[in-house]
Amino acid sequence: MSTDPSNPSPTLLSAACPLPASQHPRVLLGHGGGGRLTQELVERMILPAFANAHLDQRHDAAVLPTAGARLAFTTDSHVVHPLFFPGGDLGTLAVNGTLNDLAMSGARPACLSAAFILEEGLPFETLQRIVDSMKRAAAAAGVPIVTGDTKVVERGRGDGIFITTAGLGWIHHTATIAPASVRPGDLLIFSGDLGRHGIAIMATRESLQFESTIESDCASLVEPVLALLEAGIEVHCLRDLTRGGAASALHEIAGAAQLSLFIDEQRVNIRADVRAACEILGLDPMQVACEGRFLLVLPAAAAESALAVLRKFPTSEQAAIVGEVKERGRTPVVLRSRLGPARILEMGSGEQLPRIC
Amino acid sequence: MSTDPSNPSPTLLSAACPLPASQHPRVLLGHGGGGRLTQELVERMILPAFANAHLDQRHDAAVLPTAGARLAFTTDSHVVHPLFFPGGDLGTLAVNGTLNDLAMSGARPACLSAAFILEEGLPFETLQRIVDSMKRAAAAAGVPIVTGDTKVVERGRGDGIFITTAGLGWIHHTATIAPASVRPGDLLIFSGDLGRHGIAIMATRESLQFESTIESDCASLVEPVLALLEAGIEVHCLRDLTRGGAASALHEIAGAAQLSLFIDEQRVNIRADVRAACEILGLDPMQVACEGRFLLVLPAAAAESALAVLRKFPTSEQAAIVGEVKERGRTPVVLRSRLGPARILEMGSGEQLPRIC
Repeated sequence: MSTDPSNPSPTLLSAACPLPASQHPRVLLGHGGGGRLTQELVERMILPAFANAHLDQRHDAAVLPTAGARLAFTTDSHVVHPLFFPGGDLGTLAVNGTLNDLAMSGARPACLSAAFILEEGLPFETLQRIVDSMKRAAAAAGVPIVTGDTKVVERGRGDGIFITTAGLGWIHHTATIAPASVRPGDLLIFSGDLGRHGIAIMATRESLQFESTIESDCASLVEPVLALLEAGIEVHCLRDLTRGGAASALHEIAGAAQLSLFIDEQRVNIRADVRAACEILGLDPMQVACEGRFLLVLPAAAAESALAVLRKFPTSEQAAIVGEVKERGRTPVVLRSRLGPARILEMGSGEQLPRIC
Repeated sequence: MSTDPSNPSPTLLSAACPLPASQHPRVLLGHGGGGRLTQELVERMILPAFANAHLDQRHDAAVLPTAGARLAFTTDSHVVHPLFFPGGDLGTLAVNGTLNDLAMSGARPACLSAAFILEEGLPFETLQRIVDSMKRAAAAAGVPIVTGDTKVVERGRGDGIFITTAGLGWIHHTATIAPASVRPGDLLIFSGDLGRHGIAIMATRESLQFESTIESDCASLVEPVLALLEAGIEVHCLRDLTRGGAASALHEIAGAAQLSLFIDEQRVNIRADVRAACEILGLDPMQVACEGRFLLVLPAAAAESALAVLRKFPTSEQAAIVGEVKERGRTPVVLRSRLGPARILEMGSGEQLPRIC
């Protein structure tokens, strides 16, 4: 967080760079954590440069009109460390992460691309295991990987392997699944328990031992989401609870919709072992990434039917109503507790959980 | 090229890994160079895992049927070092490289994605310059960047910035632009002089001084290619001359079409300064990457009309017929010289020119 006096050209920087140069002349790890710092970087530097109507929607996937159905298009780089963790690896993450971004538009994924950046010296055995995981995850979702690329960087200039996937999907419904569709009175549903992916990574990285192994929730969300839409349930907004956790997803929606979101803390499902690990690590479980959980915003009247659909799928069988949408108040996201007073749910800075996906 | 005795599990490796384990248990820089080693890696490990009809076409972009026009989909990671070089930078490369892959399918690019992997400590000034280059290149082509992602890795785990772009384009013609369409008697056209991009990078990297600065040829090829198609010229195959240079492109087509390609060496346009630099660096200019040049294969009867179209565009004004396609002989690619005997044009291993794009 300190300023860096070695920044070569502060004058040019302050002239050209819309980021607060005096604060952050250089990229911090937290700029990749999916919290406030990531938001600042994207909003102040990247979105202004590339501004267009699709990008300005700020959804996980761009939605493009075509002659027939609408087309969803998304991409994510995956830099998770370590490469292998309980419940998954870089390969499962690279496939499911992009499938889930398509699902959050209500799109049926059609195909994926995969671009590899390999570090010189990576054992082929490691690459093979990751490629096999991608193969399995893609096959499980019935989505082919149709194009790709492979680059290699010198030893010490990468970190084993980074994978960037892009995905295309077709949107057959006509709903606008976006923060703009969210209304006061809507209910909020989390599709399952929170925080397992982030804790699985942190526990592996820090060699923490808990009584039981905490496995990542990494999974495809395509089936439960498409089942909701096929059941004719009115869906206002969807957001996967990845980097930045539930807190970032709630803040993004509250900010974009200019509404306030109220979460009942006791309804949020966080496993006891995950909660204990969060306490040890000093993390708020609402800020910890999942890779197989999503937030569903929908009219109150549709909530029970939605839960009935979601409970048919293993990844969302513990779906529960966790809160509601109100007119914009003083705070964008409020956590209500049965025992204590309501508190403001902050968006994390993103510095606590680098390289979680 | 040596074997590495520290490979942790040779038994598992030889069981699971289709690459010749005894030769290369680990990734070499050359596996990213676009030559023989890259081909081996992709053919033995990645294509078998993800096998499907689109991927098996092995074109720069996958071509997907839709209700209306066909859709082209492609991706490339860009890891060029150094980030800035005469005639361009990582940003221009990341945009034009993917636009060109779409153009090689005869597609009109519709949109791009951009995924950034930043190294902690990267000056924002550097990021801003690269983002601005992307903005300019995308605007020049009239193609919006509609979705993206930003990740950060720790200092020493990346190299400043890597950018992966994916692209979508619409194919409005009905031709099959692919090696399968190439016929004996077809002519080969190079759209301009060869090798400038690779030499611009190598000269910058090695701080080589030549009398004049050799600038990269990095440019969008969309306009000349679409002009060919719009003029109704019968195009059999297109290939951009990137990693691995003209040699890799010619070998890929010869291999896929099971034909032999004959190049007249004296018709290949290589600038004197590039030729001199290649001699100093011990490189074959036919193996050096371009980023704004392509190979066009077409019926002999269409060649003059094609040249007339290409010469209207600055990037292809020096287009020239350089050879012809024949029935498959003993060698896939032959260089004919006016003075000496014909010689076999080899595909490079890819080790000489790492991180060229």
